[in-house]
Amino acid sequence: MAKITTRSPLAPERFPDLPVIDGVRFATAAAGVRYAGRKDVMLALLAPGSSVAGVFTRSSTRSAPVLDCQSKLGGDLSAGAAILVNSGNANAFTGAIGVVSVNAVCDAVAEATGIPRARVFTASTGVIGERLPHDRITDRLGELAGSLRADGIDDAAAAIMTTDTFLKGAGAQVDLPGGRVQIAGIAKGSGMIAPDMATMLAYIFTDAVIAQGDLQAMLSEFTDVTFNCITVDSDTSTSDTLMLAATGASGASGAHDDFRAALHGVMRDLAHQVVRDGEGATKFVTVRVTGAVSDAEARVHALSIANSPLVKTAIAGEDPNWGRIVMAIGKSGAVADRDRLSIRFGDVVVAEKGWVSDNYREEQGAALMTAPEIEIGVDIGLGDGQALVWTCDLTHGYIAINADYRS
Amino acid sequence: MAKITTRSPLAPERFPDLPVIDGVRFATAAAGVRYAGRKDVMLALLAPGSSVAGVFTRSSTRSAPVLDCQSKLGGDLSAGAAILVNSGNANAFTGAIGVVSVNAVCDAVAEATGIPRARVFTASTGVIGERLPHDRITDRLGELAGSLRADGIDDAAAAIMTTDTFLKGAGAQVDLPGGRVQIAGIAKGSGMIAPDMATMLAYIFTDAVIAQGDLQAMLSEFTDVTFNCITVDSDTSTSDTLMLAATGASGASGAHDDFRAALHGVMRDLAHQVVRDGEGATKFVTVRVTGAVSDAEARVHALSIANSPLVKTAIAGEDPNWGRIVMAIGKSGAVADRDRLSIRFGDVVVAEKGWVSDNYREEQGAALMTAPEIEIGVDIGLGDGQALVWTCDLTHGYIAINADYRS
Repeated sequence: MAKITTRSPLAPERFPDLPVIDGVRFATAAAGVRYAGRKDVMLALLAPGSSVAGVFTRSSTRSAPVLDCQSKLGGDLSAGAAILVNSGNANAFTGAIGVVSVNAVCDAVAEATGIPRARVFTASTGVIGERLPHDRITDRLGELAGSLRADGIDDAAAAIMTTDTFLKGAGAQVDLPGGRVQIAGIAKGSGMIAPDMATMLAYIFTDAVIAQGDLQAMLSEFTDVTFNCITVDSDTSTSDTLMLAATGASGASGAHDDFRAALHGVMRDLAHQVVRDGEGATKFVTVRVTGAVSDAEARVHALSIANSPLVKTAIAGEDPNWGRIVMAIGKSGAVADRDRLSIRFGDVVVAEKGWVSDNYREEQGAALMTAPEIEIGVDIGLGDGQALVWTCDLTHGYIAINADYRS
Repeated sequence: MAKITTRSPLAPERFPDLPVIDGVRFATAAAGVRYAGRKDVMLALLAPGSSVAGVFTRSSTRSAPVLDCQSKLGGDLSAGAAILVNSGNANAFTGAIGVVSVNAVCDAVAEATGIPRARVFTASTGVIGERLPHDRITDRLGELAGSLRADGIDDAAAAIMTTDTFLKGAGAQVDLPGGRVQIAGIAKGSGMIAPDMATMLAYIFTDAVIAQGDLQAMLSEFTDVTFNCITVDSDTSTSDTLMLAATGASGASGAHDDFRAALHGVMRDLAHQVVRDGEGATKFVTVRVTGAVSDAEARVHALSIANSPLVKTAIAGEDPNWGRIVMAIGKSGAVADRDRLSIRFGDVVVAEKGWVSDNYREEQGAALMTAPEIEIGVDIGLGDGQALVWTCDLTHGYIAINADYRS
């Protein structure tokens, strides 16, 4: 049973008013997969003609539902599509029986909704290595199919949570030449969060018109600068899934810079919310690296800083310990020259050219560290490569949550 | 000021009786570099003819003393050598002034001992980014040079500690065809411990006869299977230094399998002691990976497991959460096939061929997890590659120590 934890201090004030997306309906149920007394299954039904794009964990031990989804992207759109997600059990590392469970769920969704099996996408999130009691889900499909409604996305966001302490959602409305389009997305994720893949579960819907190939390209492009730029604990889930569906119901083409900007914004917002709900987090940290020899090298430095336990515990302790940032740069494996490094906290330059800045006073750094949002800036001083990564601090809360999550 | 912490529950019962090494003398002093009321400088003097080998951190932000040592290895042995170490300040990321400090200390050692500057090796360990108050050290050199004694290695082990909670030492005695030889080594290290270099500070002395080139080759070979196979927190120090000195005073050649085995054992023992003093550690964990496509790939898997915050917190919670081991293998980037993986805790097979073993009962795993020493075995099932890595758990103690180490 997941620990009940208090709402993250970094949570947004409230869940946003998400727009209704024409062509998408939601339903949720309390199937008791693992959690008692809460909704743990969501079904989303997409109208005929909807395109669906997805990015998934690159883990070599990825789950049966992930493998199934990957094999189904890009199929025939004419019959619509369905997405079914359960929380509480990841159906990962469950061998052949895991595939049996995925197929059973897909069959039941197909039967209840009339959507072909090849267009049913599932995801499971929760404990690894335990058999998914799929009967508890399939038993509820009649109820789910009978209660679909266009304004059910808030409940869907609740049904997919595991150790999350708040509902995660983001939306946008864009006026395009072809008409007004809407975007609404939800996500879950709190621990086992590291980039280099689509981290956690997220589902984003729009009524823009976007062809399958374009939708996948757009999703992959923005994943690289949003979900792939967050890390809570450097650990990568076996189940991570990010899907984007476009129903086309607005009649307006999404091939427009304003739409791209809005989608990018929604994805960044959702990714930030995952970090804000990082297990035990008390600080939201932006790491901005510039001046590396390439963007890829900048990213290696930024992730080395963002994943360093010593940097993260210093931030938890509100200690402006820039020496640990130097350490993290030094160990990263990417190119750096100690005597060209500059480091800043927010707007305050802490170190320049290999040593502490003449103007820096420890009190300045200490004052900045008390804020709930902190920016660490590093200039490597060697080139034009840059990267932006978001993370949180490492606290007693993380230990408390993870030393007895499963017990 | 470093936190005063209680002795690690994983500490050896007592400091070993280390043999006296003919040709090496030690002295220590309380110079007040940072810590008040404790010894924080050690001097070791090596007799003429001693060979000295070293391996150092590969950090790109390595400290001024490390750069100085690296430039001095392999010099003229005839005049002997000196090693001076201070704790409390790392003299790292201190720009040009850091080099000034190293030179000042080397000059003072040379003047006080008669050893040429080119044969004076220094190391500094402690806070990064603060100027080393080297006068406090040079002021004590007369006292240090005047109090050298052959049996002072215990005090030397104490003088180099920072956040360590126990003295670390290991020794051996080997009867070789040419006569009896002795080995004695000391180490410090507790946090900022990750492999891929000589992690932390360690000094090992022997009276065997070993030429400079052979000594360096032997040190590098055994570093790869000892100090480079430990990790506490995946963070890598800017100051790590491991030196091995051979005085030759026994007259017996160290070019013998028995000597090699004894040296390997001393290095492994010291490396294990560093893990046993891992910040906040309550469990000593051996990760043994077999069946990978190569030894290098096995090492990637083993380190991914050993550095995973979720695996380490599960161990802290005595939770036999093998799903997190699957996750760590999946994210490592090394080749794995989910359906060929086997996992065991100690002798108990937990998972076989991609799913939980038929015979495994959770109580078995839970019982094993209560022990202070735990072995995680993973067979990848694809080849002959293997690796062995040692680590500790991640506890509230680590957070407590590191959220206010410098403040």
